[in-house]
Amino acid sequence: MGKMDREVEKISISQFTEEGRRNLEDVFAREFPLTIILNDRELATLLCSPKDLGYLAVGFLYSEGLLESKDGIKKISVDDKRGVVRLETIEDKGFTRDILFKRVVISSASGKGASLYNAADAASQKIESRMKISADEVSALVERFQHRSQLYLATGCVHSAALCDTKNTLVFTEDIGRHSAIDKIFGKCLLENIPTDERVMITSGRISSEILRKVARKRIPIIISIAVPTNLGVRIADKLGITLISSVRGKRMNICANGWRVTTGGG
Amino acid sequence: MGKMDREVEKISISQFTEEGRRNLEDVFAREFPLTIILNDRELATLLCSPKDLGYLAVGFLYSEGLLESKDGIKKISVDDKRGVVRLETIEDKGFTRDILFKRVVISSASGKGASLYNAADAASQKIESRMKISADEVSALVERFQHRSQLYLATGCVHSAALCDTKNTLVFTEDIGRHSAIDKIFGKCLLENIPTDERVMITSGRISSEILRKVARKRIPIIISIAVPTNLGVRIADKLGITLISSVRGKRMNICANGWRVTTGGG
Repeated sequence: MGKMDREVEKISISQFTEEGRRNLEDVFAREFPLTIILNDRELATLLCSPKDLGYLAVGFLYSEGLLESKDGIKKISVDDKRGVVRLETIEDKGFTRDILFKRVVISSASGKGASLYNAADAASQKIESRMKISADEVSALVERFQHRSQLYLATGCVHSAALCDTKNTLVFTEDIGRHSAIDKIFGKCLLENIPTDERVMITSGRISSEILRKVARKRIPIIISIAVPTNLGVRIADKLGITLISSVRGKRMNICANGWRVTTGGG
Repeated sequence: MGKMDREVEKISISQFTEEGRRNLEDVFAREFPLTIILNDRELATLLCSPKDLGYLAVGFLYSEGLLESKDGIKKISVDDKRGVVRLETIEDKGFTRDILFKRVVISSASGKGASLYNAADAASQKIESRMKISADEVSALVERFQHRSQLYLATGCVHSAALCDTKNTLVFTEDIGRHSAIDKIFGKCLLENIPTDERVMITSGRISSEILRKVARKRIPIIISIAVPTNLGVRIADKLGITLISSVRGKRMNICANGWRVTTGGG
């Protein structure tokens, strides 16, 4: 455990097995409220894993369209204990509740009407990157990815995400939410000027239309999931020129969209 | 497939295996935008599985605190094709964007400040039901639950939920979202006057604090998950008098809170 102490809590439970009932201590993923204060106004409280809080706040702002780059940040302070991140931005986009309302609804397994929902797709530009990856490289990246999440191994209750090139993991994050794990990646990339446009995103979670849109906004040409996409996830990936690889198990994988970026063999 | 036609879409993909690349048709869970219009105002658009749309709309309103009972509904019309549910209520709770803003933020893996977040817990009354269930009954209910989801078996991409007594499944629902699967149960219970207060809820998803709160609002004394809870899920169940059973695999299960309702053996 050790370095995970903040992210987990031990709680006494009873376990029933064929052999009877016994009491034991089990390890649970901690769900922690993080309040984001933007230019002195409370923006939102996210329930998250208490790690990389600054990255999460910055990535959340980016994904919600309230921040474009590191240059936009005047000041950031992270209070790990109280669970508060304060951000001051150069340009106050002056979020109104009305603007935020729409965004939050969209980002919460919800959207603002079917018509507007489709318009959001159309607004995104097609990704033209000529980047390629071999099936063997995908297998190798995923294998390392799956062995890396100590928190998942301990609790069975978190998602992870990784930004990679075709050979190496560049950023790795974990969170109880699949959206927040990806936002943490974006926050780190923004704060540390890590480019994402010729990179691969790996996620442990299902790929819904919202996850696809998030990745499209960062111009990432290849997304890989251990799990499966929804039909809209595939349709949007296809339309936006994003390569979508799912259900990776060893050498086995499904290429659901833009398979031309995936080469056979050792590439 | 047949009766699931609306809930899935077949899309051509490439599959890589040790034997090489082949093209095939795979089945994906459909992600469908459902717009809820409450008293002529557009409330939200949920991305959901296109089934039980009326139940979902009613359950969503209930979970968001905008509807208390069937008697509160003046009129409901479901347009399955366009994905619109129109609801008229007797008492227009006159949701303002501001009120809704808070609710939506809370319901989207987010909350409205740590202090307010805790206050929400304190507001819920402890569940006093003396209902009991035996470990064997839990195993039997879960086994049936796991064999029931045709949509999961076809797509690997949906959650399911069930309302049961100690022996029988009373309501069973599926959705791409774990929150929406539960809201569909609540919607059906509300519309068909099915009581929930001496019942068991089974979910395929992780039990976060938000899921726990949802179930507490419906006064359900026992919640069972195939997956695991977060630490807050356990803490809140403990405080509200809810029995939380997780990680059920055959005869094996973890009793994380209020284990006094679970008896050993055949009960």
